Amino acid sequence: MGNLAACCRSFWCKPKNPDIRISLPAVCFVWQIAMIILFGLFVYPSEAINYDTINGLYNLFEHFDVHVMIFVGFGFLMTFLKRYSFGGVGFNFLIAAFGLQWALLMQGWFHSLDPNDGLIKIGIENIINADFCVAGCLIAYGALLGKVSPVQLMVLTLFGITLFAVEEYIILNVLHVRDAGGSMVIHTFGAYYGLTISWILYRPKLDQSKNLSGSVYHSDVFAMIGTLFLWMYWPSFNSAIADHGDGQHRAAINTYLALAASVLTTFAISSLSAKKGKLDMVHIQNATLAGGVAMGTAAEFMISPYGSLIVGFVCGIISTFGYLVITPFMEKYLKIQDTCGIHNLHAMPGVLGGVVGAITAATASESVYGHEGLVNTFDFEGNYAKRTPATQGGFQAAGLCVALAFGIVGGAIVGFILRLPCCWGDPSDENCFDDEVYWELPEDEESIPPILEYSSHMVGKNTDMM
Amino acid sequence: MGNLAACCRSFWCKPKNPDIRISLPAVCFVWQIAMIILFGLFVYPSEAINYDTINGLYNLFEHFDVHVMIFVGFGFLMTFLKRYSFGGVGFNFLIAAFGLQWALLMQGWFHSLDPNDGLIKIGIENIINADFCVAGCLIAYGALLGKVSPVQLMVLTLFGITLFAVEEYIILNVLHVRDAGGSMVIHTFGAYYGLTISWILYRPKLDQSKNLSGSVYHSDVFAMIGTLFLWMYWPSFNSAIADHGDGQHRAAINTYLALAASVLTTFAISSLSAKKGKLDMVHIQNATLAGGVAMGTAAEFMISPYGSLIVGFVCGIISTFGYLVITPFMEKYLKIQDTCGIHNLHAMPGVLGGVVGAITAATASESVYGHEGLVNTFDFEGNYAKRTPATQGGFQAAGLCVALAFGIVGGAIVGFILRLPCCWGDPSDENCFDDEVYWELPEDEESIPPILEYSSHMVGKNTDMM
Amino acid sequence: MGNLAACCRSFWCKPKNPDIRISLPAVCFVWQIAMIILFGLFVYPSEAINYDTINGLYNLFEHFDVHVMIFVGFGFLMTFLKRYSFGGVGFNFLIAAFGLQWALLMQGWFHSLDPNDGLIKIGIENIINADFCVAGCLIAYGALLGKVSPVQLMVLTLFGITLFAVEEYIILNVLHVRDAGGSMVIHTFGAYYGLTISWILYRPKLDQSKNLSGSVYHSDVFAMIGTLFLWMYWPSFNSAIADHGDGQHRAAINTYLALAASVLTTFAISSLSAKKGKLDMVHIQNATLAGGVAMGTAAEFMISPYGSLIVGFVCGIISTFGYLVITPFMEKYLKIQDTCGIHNLHAMPGVLGGVVGAITAATASESVYGHEGLVNTFDFEGNYAKRTPATQGGFQAAGLCVALAFGIVGGAIVGFILRLPCCWGDPSDENCFDDEVYWELPEDEESIPPILEYSSHMVGKNTDMM
Repeated sequence: MGNLAACCRSFWCKPKNPDIRISLPAVCFVWQIAMIILFGLFVYPSEAINYDTINGLYNLFEHFDVHVMIFVGFGFLMTFLKRYSFGGVGFNFLIAAFGLQWALLMQGWFHSLDPNDGLIKIGIENIINADFCVAGCLIAYGALLGKVSPVQLMVLTLFGITLFAVEEYIILNVLHVRDAGGSMVIHTFGAYYGLTISWILYRPKLDQSKNLSGSVYHSDVFAMIGTLFLWMYWPSFNSAIADHGDGQHRAAINTYLALAASVLTTFAISSLSAKKGKLDMVHIQNATLAGGVAMGTAAEFMISPYGSLIVGFVCGIISTFGYLVITPFMEKYLKIQDTCGIHNLHAMPGVLGGVVGAITAATASESVYGHEGLVNTFDFEGNYAKRTPATQGGFQAAGLCVALAFGIVGGAIVGFILRLPCCWGDPSDENCFDDEVYWELPEDEESIPPILEYSSHMVGKNTDMM
Repeated sequence: MGNLAACCRSFWCKPKNPDIRISLPAVCFVWQIAMIILFGLFVYPSEAINYDTINGLYNLFEHFDVHVMIFVGFGFLMTFLKRYSFGGVGFNFLIAAFGLQWALLMQGWFHSLDPNDGLIKIGIENIINADFCVAGCLIAYGALLGKVSPVQLMVLTLFGITLFAVEEYIILNVLHVRDAGGSMVIHTFGAYYGLTISWILYRPKLDQSKNLSGSVYHSDVFAMIGTLFLWMYWPSFNSAIADHGDGQHRAAINTYLALAASVLTTFAISSLSAKKGKLDMVHIQNATLAGGVAMGTAAEFMISPYGSLIVGFVCGIISTFGYLVITPFMEKYLKIQDTCGIHNLHAMPGVLGGVVGAITAATASESVYGHEGLVNTFDFEGNYAKRTPATQGGFQAAGLCVALAFGIVGGAIVGFILRLPCCWGDPSDENCFDDEVYWELPEDEESIPPILEYSSHMVGKNTDMM
Repeated sequence: MGNLAACCRSFWCKPKNPDIRISLPAVCFVWQIAMIILFGLFVYPSEAINYDTINGLYNLFEHFDVHVMIFVGFGFLMTFLKRYSFGGVGFNFLIAAFGLQWALLMQGWFHSLDPNDGLIKIGIENIINADFCVAGCLIAYGALLGKVSPVQLMVLTLFGITLFAVEEYIILNVLHVRDAGGSMVIHTFGAYYGLTISWILYRPKLDQSKNLSGSVYHSDVFAMIGTLFLWMYWPSFNSAIADHGDGQHRAAINTYLALAASVLTTFAISSLSAKKGKLDMVHIQNATLAGGVAMGTAAEFMISPYGSLIVGFVCGIISTFGYLVITPFMEKYLKIQDTCGIHNLHAMPGVLGGVVGAITAATASESVYGHEGLVNTFDFEGNYAKRTPATQGGFQAAGLCVALAFGIVGGAIVGFILRLPCCWGDPSDENCFDDEVYWELPEDEESIPPILEYSSHMVGKNTDMM
């Protein structure tokens, strides 16, 4: 019995070896080659595509706002750690670049397959949807930032995109739920997926890395680049695939208002909670975005401007409160270590957004939306022509449960896989949050010769110049 | 008499207490709740809006350029101080998020009120105009950067937006002046509003903070993010609400050319003024933008490409000269402390832009614009059908005076309010330009363990790992 | 003979004097005034332009993506050096602002001249093309970063734009070659132009500056801003002037896929090449973009999604390999010092892109493109109505040779000019990569008082406050 335990321990708890020289190149090469083959087999060749037809109302340049959010927004938001900025923005770049290829295929199989020849046509809407799909995985990365290897992140992304595509198909197509900005499909799923993985990969001795788990002055300013680009373009995110026309405009304006309200309540709670009212950059970087998350479902509904402000108001409070109380609680008692606090920024506002969406849908009426508005907003056509708003509200709630279930069960499975004693290359507990493990770091700033003395010194030393 | 003086002194000169734990949350909560109530009362609910109608020619995604300027452009331009980057980008974020809500209401009451039911419809044009309105307050913040509390900034914004909306109504609607990019309405007003407040809040002992009033290497690079996004999108700013079609294209191209010329003359004067021709980052960050400010009024007029280049040429010179000579002069003799040098970037080029606009308008002729062009450009329709270009030039000049008057008188009133011995929480003279006062700062970079030795050191220390 | 040698040496090898106080302002003023005069003589005044006609399908806001790449993308990509971030982003700003004015004229004379009156009309397409033209010079700057003076850069830009316009005219108009994203016209030309100049300006003692030739932690994060904005908007770059409609969409999507594949192979090779698989930021910052360069010609052709992935796959490998092996080889044996490694990012992928384009064109067939598609894609109209795809492939290859020839011969001439013993103000070998030479630098960070002790310390010292 003691032997078995020892054996188990030696099986599960091998000393960490963060060498990824074989595993990372292998994963990148093999998977990229797989992508090329799959694209060759399943994606329409260029000649057969008439883009005007498949893009419809989508403007070619419309997807860039969402693209900026994925690469600069999420990427720089994760540079806040004092010595993990390379990993934050760099691995974000890697998994997004892989994820979008796999998402084009997965979502293509579910949504854009030509029934005649089984091929996928890639247009602007597919690119936007791939970005959405990637967002789910990047949210999950937020919980794990600094604690996993890039190889683990690639696996997380492979499974995350796969789960996302299935979950999205069930929620949007089978249940016929509306979720244009993805409160449920993206944020709830992504957050619980990441949190569950983090729970399974719990590191009891993580405090050995605590000298690197904070920020420095300039890394916090870098993170604000991410915050601001996310904040500014969020209206675009929530409205990108909403019903073009009125629905899209409504989604953009409602999101815009909710975000503005979140900023004020975030500042208020952050100041209220600290001695002398000092603000905490972590709150400003994150909780100011909560209103956008929570409007993901309801933005395109007729929640009204003041309703959007209320949602943003509440979410700024809840999210900041989460950073103050819930994250430490989860780490201490639930053994969930959440580096970026995605529980506060994505999980809680995402669930809230799903609930708000369900309520708003259930209370929709023909007198408010007009008959045509109701049909357009909820797509009550074809098989769903007879669905009532009340029923739709129920289905919206069911969609939220599906997102939660996929996040938690999927996260458990993937977390278990990532714990398998394989050559994952993840860092030991005392090397977390440290770019040194995966990056050739430049020598320290201190080695720069002092500026003021430099030139004269050098001139003095090199008097034998030609 | 001595008693009275002592009493006065003790009334006005109470030791500063920069604790904002009560005041900032109170202001944020109360004002955000007020916004929710006012939006509930005065803003059209979603269902009653047909966005295609109210947006007209405005594309949903058109406002984002201006949005990026407000949040990233102004925000990062104000990160240049070595220890006030959090305050620069953070308080910019706070007051912009509050300001745009209040601006939607104020401008709505003046411009977008439905005469039948007294409700405001919010469309894309309103959002762009709200950003413009906020820009005025952010310019004013530039003069006060590092010297006021966030509570004072909220008050400055509340009054600033209010004054702006009235001033704008008088200039654009009553005087029927054209000012698409806001040389007068935005820049002149905002700059003199901020400078007057700064004059009233004069801090005689500010040199006690002078060790923090400069930049460090990386904070100057952060500020360049702001500069470049302002510079790139300025053509969008000056053309956003210009006459759609020819007028808008003309405004964009004229602004683009003026900005390019400003860059060259800024580099020239900056180099000419220093020993060995060394360039000053402050000039490059700011004076390169002066051409955009000065084209705010005339950009949509037929000032011709070479005319735009001349305006940019002159403004780069004047603005850089301002940083070299006028800002120190103003601080020493006029007791106006102008942290970001808004007098050089906004006040002088703004006034110049108003003058250029007046001259260009006065000299407009039917032979150059064509009859239709003249009517479209200056909106000589309805009550104004009989106005001549010469008269229009006079009204443009009158508009400039109104902007100046609102800036100076409004600034005086608000400055007086902000000096009232109330719990403003502003810093003492020796704590200015210091994020430490309002932010929980991360520990210093120096506490990072040296990179090269780090991992072996840690491994050595933790030999008892599992 | 010895005398002649000594004389020659004293002529060519005068001690460097990096004082630009006269030369830089003189160049900026004189050239800007020349621009004003030339714009006055050759550019259509505003009144004569109907923008709707000259812009055609171009949306006013379409050019901003490319603009962001030029100013933020290239600018921040060049901030990676520890003490040349000001020069990287600042001189990039200067030469781009001058270059675009000169490019508007040069390209205008070649492409947009009104045959009736010899005047140039400036519309959105001209602005995009000017940005393209500037890109060629900024690529060349990459090879010379830190080793030349701003005066030399202005000369490099003046000649670079001129050469570009001629080369572009020959390739696009005379040879009727397609190169929408400029693999040949922009990247191949720009890279060999810069490399040849760098070869002629070879600095044998450059290792005296090697303590400044690397990055520091935060400068690498700044450079990622450049990388990501270039990466995200590259689809816009390659599609901006492609055949509007299908061709443009195809170009954007093909480029997007190639870029994604480059990221994975760059990470793979970077990891494979280092001890413990540690990634190198230089590779991630640069080689991830190689796919975009290589798709510059073929993006608008029907290379198919999987073909684009293959191009990106190969280019990520080649480019990273270049940084590992070819750049050190070139510096040691070919005497070409290439600061940013433009040979790996622009020269090799550019040439490859030209070759891929020629092959794709030569193998184009009516069965794949359709008759109309073939005519639209390759513009087989008018004089070229009878050209076959095979012939077109030959002309594409000829275009590549023209670009190479212009780059190398032009670079040799300009390099020779820049070596003339004139008051260029370039730094001595031991002062390269140092902003101190051309910029007033802020005092060092170390002079900031330690944060934690600061306020109490100051309060203690200033007990005599009012």
